[in-house]
Amino acid sequence: MTVSDHRFLHHAAPHIAGLSPYVPGKPVSELERELGITRSIKLASNENPLGCGAAAREAYQACIGDLGRYPDGGAYALRRAIAAHHDLDPARVTVGNGSNDVLDLVARAFLHPGQESVFSEHAFAVYPIATQAVGATARVAPAREHGHDLNALAALINERTRVVWVANPNNPTGTWLSADALREFIDGLPEHCLCVVDEAYFDYVTEPDYPDASAWLEDFPNLIVTRTFAKVHGLAALRVGYGLSHPHVAELLNRVRHPFNVSVPAQAAAIAALSDQQHVTRSIRHNRDEMAHITAGLSGLGLGWIPSVGNFVTVDLGRPAAAVDQALLREGVICRPVANYGLPNHLRITVGLAEENARLLDTLGAVLERPA
Amino acid sequence: MTVSDHRFLHHAAPHIAGLSPYVPGKPVSELERELGITRSIKLASNENPLGCGAAAREAYQACIGDLGRYPDGGAYALRRAIAAHHDLDPARVTVGNGSNDVLDLVARAFLHPGQESVFSEHAFAVYPIATQAVGATARVAPAREHGHDLNALAALINERTRVVWVANPNNPTGTWLSADALREFIDGLPEHCLCVVDEAYFDYVTEPDYPDASAWLEDFPNLIVTRTFAKVHGLAALRVGYGLSHPHVAELLNRVRHPFNVSVPAQAAAIAALSDQQHVTRSIRHNRDEMAHITAGLSGLGLGWIPSVGNFVTVDLGRPAAAVDQALLREGVICRPVANYGLPNHLRITVGLAEENARLLDTLGAVLERPA
Repeated sequence: MTVSDHRFLHHAAPHIAGLSPYVPGKPVSELERELGITRSIKLASNENPLGCGAAAREAYQACIGDLGRYPDGGAYALRRAIAAHHDLDPARVTVGNGSNDVLDLVARAFLHPGQESVFSEHAFAVYPIATQAVGATARVAPAREHGHDLNALAALINERTRVVWVANPNNPTGTWLSADALREFIDGLPEHCLCVVDEAYFDYVTEPDYPDASAWLEDFPNLIVTRTFAKVHGLAALRVGYGLSHPHVAELLNRVRHPFNVSVPAQAAAIAALSDQQHVTRSIRHNRDEMAHITAGLSGLGLGWIPSVGNFVTVDLGRPAAAVDQALLREGVICRPVANYGLPNHLRITVGLAEENARLLDTLGAVLERPA
Repeated sequence: MTVSDHRFLHHAAPHIAGLSPYVPGKPVSELERELGITRSIKLASNENPLGCGAAAREAYQACIGDLGRYPDGGAYALRRAIAAHHDLDPARVTVGNGSNDVLDLVARAFLHPGQESVFSEHAFAVYPIATQAVGATARVAPAREHGHDLNALAALINERTRVVWVANPNNPTGTWLSADALREFIDGLPEHCLCVVDEAYFDYVTEPDYPDASAWLEDFPNLIVTRTFAKVHGLAALRVGYGLSHPHVAELLNRVRHPFNVSVPAQAAAIAALSDQQHVTRSIRHNRDEMAHITAGLSGLGLGWIPSVGNFVTVDLGRPAAAVDQALLREGVICRPVANYGLPNHLRITVGLAEENARLLDTLGAVLERPA
């Protein structure tokens, strides 16, 4: 639809015109019907292939008698559980309908037209969207070896910058920043620039130099750390994440938060998940073992990939990924093309179950052998 | 906290300063612990005392094996079910994390600093919050007999007005607008002014002149109708609602919508609820019968109330309601004071189960007999 055909675009807030309309992806069931396939596998959304743990499942189950009641708008018990998990004051916690919601709250509270946010090339797609949705300006720093170049990010920060988004590790590249480097970067920021360290994939990282930025909150009042229950905790279906920050920052984020943004089962399951260290450990071990299988398999196919500390790996196909992705889809293997991240020859593969990963490798090998 | 004490307020977007910080209400379990009460009843949030129907509960249950997977971002099946329910094109449907989310999407897409939204005195509290959260200006028309005065609303509309919010029926007053009056009002609006008709309590209304504004969408491209699954469908815990509008308006709302804003169980339970007419009928009948009991009981206590077509009634205590509310709380009866709606002597009572309503009336009678 062109702008002139659009009946309401000229009545919308001016920055809305530049926002890309969201194009809903087809659900797996629809895709299967259209392609005439039956047992597809989804390695596209960095979900935990083991799902959630038994404790979270039981907590979900226990909500069934109370679906008619509104959630606790203050998420009292969940905020206390998160605070205890990090040994922090609950006043530092902001809950979100997924960490996406928290990222958006940061933009709504701190960015507006005339101000800027800064992030890296290949960084998570929500940073530009959240920035643009409030009419602020996005500044993109070039990446270095597919990862964040902290010097390049720092060079873009000026008196108009209110937020710098740092994904550690980054999605979709799986690259990460060391404690020393990231701490020095935050230390060099002016206080008017908030630093959001997005730790959605925190639990998967086993590198000794990888930091837990939530331990730095006392040192840096302009630091916001975000986490999600959608990854290692296996609760993507329920939408729950959180931000940790200075209490005054949290107070501002809570001004723009919808009071009932986190549902009853999401609050209950998240509390249970935090106490289920066994499931986290099992999920991390599974990811480590299967990541080794997948990367060995990719090597066997003669393919390179971006070294990843997450639960996904982004492989360089050495040719446009779109056609390969389409061929995989027809075989029932759903991965994530990342051309919109500036990586048109790459495909992001989520670490799945052992049999799913084996099928991905077999199918990818077969597809790549066909004449292009 | 004063503005000068606030470490980050001066870095926030300027309109955030005027937003009231959200003060989380205490959950019932906390309240019970603090007040030393055990079997409290909650008649405070206009929930369906019967909860959800069996079909929705089964749909919720069926999601338990798939909590690790993201929701369908396009809510394909839910949007089709809603569209079929209203006999409309799915392109007219925008799904929300509760209808609160949809109201907020309208503000984000169509309001910005320098523009105005219009609503009535005593109208739902989310209208001013959504307006202020994007830095637009709220214009409030005086009410007439506690209800919307459409002439007063029309008088406030000018070239800067982008949204007029009309709650039909209104919360917390339970007042309603007839088909003829509302249709004439919408017909008189300039196209640059969207009319949001908030029909959260639609199903409870049995008045013959009460309109289904969703039937007018073909006639009024600037009309948005919102509905929720939190009331008659008894799914407040899951957070799901929707907007119906011109497809171009829906396209703009979807630009600011988070793709995964409605959870997996919320989508599934909402689809099931739409097909469970039996539960809707049972809930409406219960509400009608118990509303009659409550109002008769209030008359017996010598109290007046605002005639309500919803699942709640707002009673005039003839004295400041805050002290009465506190006394009721200590007896374990939780109602909703509405001083923040400009009704300091009123208390909003949700229609509960028969035994809850009887206890409310007994307790209220006892509290009012005590010396003030």
